[in-house]
Amino acid sequence: MHRMDAADDSSGPLYQRIAARIEAAIASGAMRAGARLPSVRQLSQQHEVSMSTALQVYRCLENRGVVEARPKSGYFVTPRAPSLPEPMLDLRMEAPSLVNMDQVLQEFLWIVNDPLAVPSFHAQPARELLPEAKLQHLLAGVNRRHPEYASRCQMEGSAALRQEIARRAVASGVPLRPDEIVITNGGLEAVYLALRTVASAGDTIVLESPTYFHLLQVIESLGMRALEIPTHPRDGISLEALEFATREPGSVKACVLLPNFPNPMGSLMPVERKRALVQLARERGITLIESDIYGELHFGEQRPPVLKSFDAEADIILCSAFTKTVAPGYRIGWVAPGRHFLKTQALKFRTSVACPMLTQEVLAQFIRDGGYDHHLRKLRAALKTQMHQMVDSVARHFPMGCRMSLPQGGMMLWIELPKHVDSREVFALARLEHIGVGPGAAFSTTRRFDHFIRLQYGEPFTAATEAAMKRLGHIVERLAKRGPSLGDARPQHEPRLIDA
Amino acid sequence: MHRMDAADDSSGPLYQRIAARIEAAIASGAMRAGARLPSVRQLSQQHEVSMSTALQVYRCLENRGVVEARPKSGYFVTPRAPSLPEPMLDLRMEAPSLVNMDQVLQEFLWIVNDPLAVPSFHAQPARELLPEAKLQHLLAGVNRRHPEYASRCQMEGSAALRQEIARRAVASGVPLRPDEIVITNGGLEAVYLALRTVASAGDTIVLESPTYFHLLQVIESLGMRALEIPTHPRDGISLEALEFATREPGSVKACVLLPNFPNPMGSLMPVERKRALVQLARERGITLIESDIYGELHFGEQRPPVLKSFDAEADIILCSAFTKTVAPGYRIGWVAPGRHFLKTQALKFRTSVACPMLTQEVLAQFIRDGGYDHHLRKLRAALKTQMHQMVDSVARHFPMGCRMSLPQGGMMLWIELPKHVDSREVFALARLEHIGVGPGAAFSTTRRFDHFIRLQYGEPFTAATEAAMKRLGHIVERLAKRGPSLGDARPQHEPRLIDA
Repeated sequence: MHRMDAADDSSGPLYQRIAARIEAAIASGAMRAGARLPSVRQLSQQHEVSMSTALQVYRCLENRGVVEARPKSGYFVTPRAPSLPEPMLDLRMEAPSLVNMDQVLQEFLWIVNDPLAVPSFHAQPARELLPEAKLQHLLAGVNRRHPEYASRCQMEGSAALRQEIARRAVASGVPLRPDEIVITNGGLEAVYLALRTVASAGDTIVLESPTYFHLLQVIESLGMRALEIPTHPRDGISLEALEFATREPGSVKACVLLPNFPNPMGSLMPVERKRALVQLARERGITLIESDIYGELHFGEQRPPVLKSFDAEADIILCSAFTKTVAPGYRIGWVAPGRHFLKTQALKFRTSVACPMLTQEVLAQFIRDGGYDHHLRKLRAALKTQMHQMVDSVARHFPMGCRMSLPQGGMMLWIELPKHVDSREVFALARLEHIGVGPGAAFSTTRRFDHFIRLQYGEPFTAATEAAMKRLGHIVERLAKRGPSLGDARPQHEPRLIDA
Repeated sequence: MHRMDAADDSSGPLYQRIAARIEAAIASGAMRAGARLPSVRQLSQQHEVSMSTALQVYRCLENRGVVEARPKSGYFVTPRAPSLPEPMLDLRMEAPSLVNMDQVLQEFLWIVNDPLAVPSFHAQPARELLPEAKLQHLLAGVNRRHPEYASRCQMEGSAALRQEIARRAVASGVPLRPDEIVITNGGLEAVYLALRTVASAGDTIVLESPTYFHLLQVIESLGMRALEIPTHPRDGISLEALEFATREPGSVKACVLLPNFPNPMGSLMPVERKRALVQLARERGITLIESDIYGELHFGEQRPPVLKSFDAEADIILCSAFTKTVAPGYRIGWVAPGRHFLKTQALKFRTSVACPMLTQEVLAQFIRDGGYDHHLRKLRAALKTQMHQMVDSVARHFPMGCRMSLPQGGMMLWIELPKHVDSREVFALARLEHIGVGPGAAFSTTRRFDHFIRLQYGEPFTAATEAAMKRLGHIVERLAKRGPSLGDARPQHEPRLIDA
């Protein structure tokens, strides 16, 4: 930033005048969205004002939403509101159906470990954002002290880890006891056990739409039916649609929901809607299975509460894991099944018996020593920055007619393309150029997301990412210009648009 | 052993005369069954004969079955044939039924970790028989070289471990490729996935009877029906009964069998019967799910072949694990699903995604470096000795009318009590004295093993074990003397006895 003169003809207090100039510089494009601003000390020197005046400048700009403070990083130009609008909410509903994913999607699921892909296909933070060295150090110590972990494990999981999980649960609004928790082989086994606890083959399970493809596959493998409920890219599942879909008693057995930053949308259900959802499920006699696997990855100040914090009847089954936040390779998750505890615990014993102790103890120690909280603060800041960089890049490179979510947490971006663009084709072309694209069709049993794609921003945004977005934008543009092909047999949705 | 004089009036070569004396000492009881004999060097000194003559003495006695050589341990008096006869084979069959275990058995399953129990409830080798220090050392190295295992794992499991599993499979008669193997969270997940691969709720699954209670629970949790086939304590499942039970086409979907040293009987199917079983299953269109989890723990010279070695159609699903032989705490197993590979692999992905890499790599290295084979040799020798000691102790302390298996591998002893003795009562009384007894009722959906118990000999036989067997013998004797109680509502089986 070039030096600005403190003398100015505008009226008002000094700090307001300085703030106005900075705002003008941002509006003119002289300062890019997401750029780092001078420190308070630098600002006071540049403008020859006191530190407290400089601080007032930033407070003023912060209040106006022009800059934002990031803990331990300083001040940044607030990323511009996405130049692409949000995807629209399609409130039409389709009947519950058995899941049946086709070949292209199966292929997508098996190539997610293309090591050359930028961005990668993985819905995981990049290795450099994970505390590998710290965990390695802790693991060496646990291994030294506990050779017996090779020979023995505890059925119910590490007491130390369950203790730490219970302590952390307070922040998400739930008073959990360690003995209410079952440790699982990752977050998926947690949801899998929860589903088997309360539902059987043939039962209908409500899901957000779009939802995580892996969840659809689990439902498929259990012979259950998926009923997808329209979900807003900002506020989460539509309560109105859910109310409508569940009006017939007994028609729905359970809901599997991610109210906090689900894959692929990164939406966040407001507290009042969470409360109303729990109330509705209770009235309808539907068990909620809540996955909070992204709950710690919030971009706002506060860690959002879980649905279970509004659950007086202990009927909600809360699932989570450490696979998205700290140690994907450890494959450690957990489930707090509330009043279903004994059944879930018995199913765990009948599925995979128990989990290895060594890595559970490492995590317990990492959490207890404060390493986890420290890591989470850094990870959240990095993901937020990367989100803004990715959003900005997509906005610059994608053609008109695209829309995009503005994630409130997590590490996924959900992009709506012009309606006649087939995301499978985008996926296939991008794959050839090692660009990790999730085809929208993988996130629903319906065809309504065939023109959506998912990107992830779990890795630092580099020149390679920028170049990839540029090439991806070209691919989309080329397909968009081609127009709907004559032979296109896909059903053309004409959503009834509702500004929810 | 007191010194014996080499001069003797019996005829024949010197070595035969010495052998005859030793045999007489054994027959007289002066040398106990299972006792260690002098080394070849000691024998040559005691009798003032050459080393080669001393060796001839032992070869002669070995050929006559009077002594046995144990690798790296020396020569031992051959344990006497059990003074208790084998349990009898009850060839009656009952209809397939849903599994429903009662409260006592549930309780049994949850107290298996009573740390004071001698023998323990665990069907695992004692910690001192497991290579904890070696694994600890290897793990430290893998952790040092691969911090990335905290962050990443491979969907299909460690390539190095699958390579070693494939190499070892040759000894069990199966040419496996690494890419035909799926790594699982322990042996139970392997069987669980295999069952889900080929059967659904309502299907009938054939099992050995008695069988491992955990397997019954898995079948129960999947809503399948268990059809138990009478199984001989020495030769394994009755082919005649199996043939009879499966004569109606389509009535049975799959068999889950442990032809090598199953829990609780330790039987070993002879090769010809294995071949015939595979043939029968093929003719009847029944998929065999084979668990070879105890296959490495053979007491005979040869590692027995698996059923899959006779399987030309690749229809047999072979499951195994490292939980019984080397690292129970690692929870690592595997499944080789043959032509069902893609389905099993997909189910693994939909159940628990993948397994942690760190411990897989440790095992791979332990196997590759020869540590595993070395460990297995020692473990087998220890288990065989412990088996003989336990068999001997039970024979001395249990009352008349008891029968007992003579295990050919593994670490379980299966004991038949007088018919009116309720093994749940034995279990409950023994439990108060911290004696680990498995009640026979837990090993079947029928009531026919209500008067059986399982003991395990996975830990070194000590004075405490001897004392426990003495007390247990008293408990059994007391209950046996009491006679059938008037209020005893249990159905009294009158097995049609067949000397199979």
